Amino acid sequence: MDMVIEAVEEAFEEYGKGRTIMPAKIYLPLEQYQGDFRAMPAFVGGSAGLKWVNVHPRNRIKTGLPTVMAVIIYSDPETGFPLAIMDGTIITNYRTGAAGAVASKYLARKESRSLGLVGCGAQAQTQLEAISKFFDLGIVRIFSPSQDCMNAFVAKNKEFYPEKTSLEEAVNSDIVCTTTPVKNSIVNREWIKEGTHINAIGADAKGKEELDPAILLIAKVVVDDIAQASHSGEIHVPIAKGIYRKENVYAALGEIVAGTKPGREGDEITVFDSTGLAIQDVATAEVIVEEAKRLGVGSEIDLVCQQWANL
Amino acid sequence: MDMVIEAVEEAFEEYGKGRTIMPAKIYLPLEQYQGDFRAMPAFVGGSAGLKWVNVHPRNRIKTGLPTVMAVIIYSDPETGFPLAIMDGTIITNYRTGAAGAVASKYLARKESRSLGLVGCGAQAQTQLEAISKFFDLGIVRIFSPSQDCMNAFVAKNKEFYPEKTSLEEAVNSDIVCTTTPVKNSIVNREWIKEGTHINAIGADAKGKEELDPAILLIAKVVVDDIAQASHSGEIHVPIAKGIYRKENVYAALGEIVAGTKPGREGDEITVFDSTGLAIQDVATAEVIVEEAKRLGVGSEIDLVCQQWANL
Repeated sequence: MDMVIEAVEEAFEEYGKGRTIMPAKIYLPLEQYQGDFRAMPAFVGGSAGLKWVNVHPRNRIKTGLPTVMAVIIYSDPETGFPLAIMDGTIITNYRTGAAGAVASKYLARKESRSLGLVGCGAQAQTQLEAISKFFDLGIVRIFSPSQDCMNAFVAKNKEFYPEKTSLEEAVNSDIVCTTTPVKNSIVNREWIKEGTHINAIGADAKGKEELDPAILLIAKVVVDDIAQASHSGEIHVPIAKGIYRKENVYAALGEIVAGTKPGREGDEITVFDSTGLAIQDVATAEVIVEEAKRLGVGSEIDLVCQQWANL
Repeated sequence: MDMVIEAVEEAFEEYGKGRTIMPAKIYLPLEQYQGDFRAMPAFVGGSAGLKWVNVHPRNRIKTGLPTVMAVIIYSDPETGFPLAIMDGTIITNYRTGAAGAVASKYLARKESRSLGLVGCGAQAQTQLEAISKFFDLGIVRIFSPSQDCMNAFVAKNKEFYPEKTSLEEAVNSDIVCTTTPVKNSIVNREWIKEGTHINAIGADAKGKEELDPAILLIAKVVVDDIAQASHSGEIHVPIAKGIYRKENVYAALGEIVAGTKPGREGDEITVFDSTGLAIQDVATAEVIVEEAKRLGVGSEIDLVCQQWANL
């Protein structure tokens, strides 16, 4: 996770400096299967690649497979040669956790000690792992409507002594991470104390919304990418309803990491609207490839190249 | 090639019946490397997948690698699970040849005996291989400005006795395939006899054009996909210049294959404008996967799934 955080922070910096290339992701909608695929290409820090990722919310119940699975192709930008092909499912979770940690580094109060997790799935797990790298977390609160999910989370993260709480108690924390798939806001304005930083992770597709829009109106709102956030992030439903305007967004996280705009100031409430960027995936894939080389793991693709010789 | 032709013909039929899902491909332009990548997702005939393909024209000279290399991820549309990952470079060549053959089947005169190839690279090779499946080719003519390229082609295709000819002689054939990267039209109107069918393969990106626009104006023009063709196919430069109009296009190949519109009628000149569709790739990938299963080749990815169990 340390290496992924470093890579993701650098990717946001490159983005903030205008050095990345990242077309809008395209969707392959498959309504007949109640799912979709997304193709996410990017160039960042001298690396190029693509993530191919699905979202099939019925998987857990129907098949036991994860809702989200991904494959990453890591390519040489100079020749186009495919340097590596790897699972992107675990990378997706790690790079999302890392983005939450980078946002918290720049937007949460330095002395933050309590972390409130709303939702207790794979995304909550990596938010905790990543944020704990920057903050000395004395208190970790967890809320989910599922007791089983909370119990599993507590058992898995014994070293953090997570407390099962109500939703209201969970969000009464210095740093709050919302990682649910809800379509109606569940976090009320009046529960959020001054100085709180919120990582709004869950909303990443049409209709999804976790926070009371009143929070956005009084907070310093930072997005990962304004185009993606205004189309599918936490801000997109309030924008569609005319409650919130794109122009109210304070900055892209990359601008803050690159030093173009300051991060937290005083006791304001801050919100990071995370939709997930292809540059996070490609930057993390680069780390994996370098590590695989160093450790001598992975298998070489040479059969294909032999066949190409005849073309 | 027989299996690929069958799969590609079925894919065009599905397209013609409106049963495919294929968003416009997205480009990752890398001007600093004089190349680009394209992400091409599609759903066809119950199969889903993505091709990730580059175009780096300087590769041959600089590195000896092909200009175009591709990887295909073949996914289960019902769950999103990645069923197979395979080279897409050879598939790209085969499926392009297959499209030329399917177009020729519906658009060339049944009694066509002569094939003229303009350009002698990988695309000319698969056009010949595929078209020879439908036509009894008594004469194969080849033209290229490179003698070396022509000699290599002749040596590789002895069973067809290819004749090295001038450009004008080559296009004086029943079926003509243009597979060059030129940006100024090289095939003159007056060289084309009545009843000729032309597969215009080369133009697949901004600024590329092989045929005298006067040919388009008198021919029955069929495209693979009107959106792609009018943006980057043989017709796009004449459209941009106002010489040709999108409305002049007679049909998409899929409509003819599906029987919605008739193909060749009488001694007209016909042109197939091929840009290459993601559905051709996914349909061909399905053939490869089924063959790999039948033959028991390929390696299973199970390590990843074991890791997912912990998510």
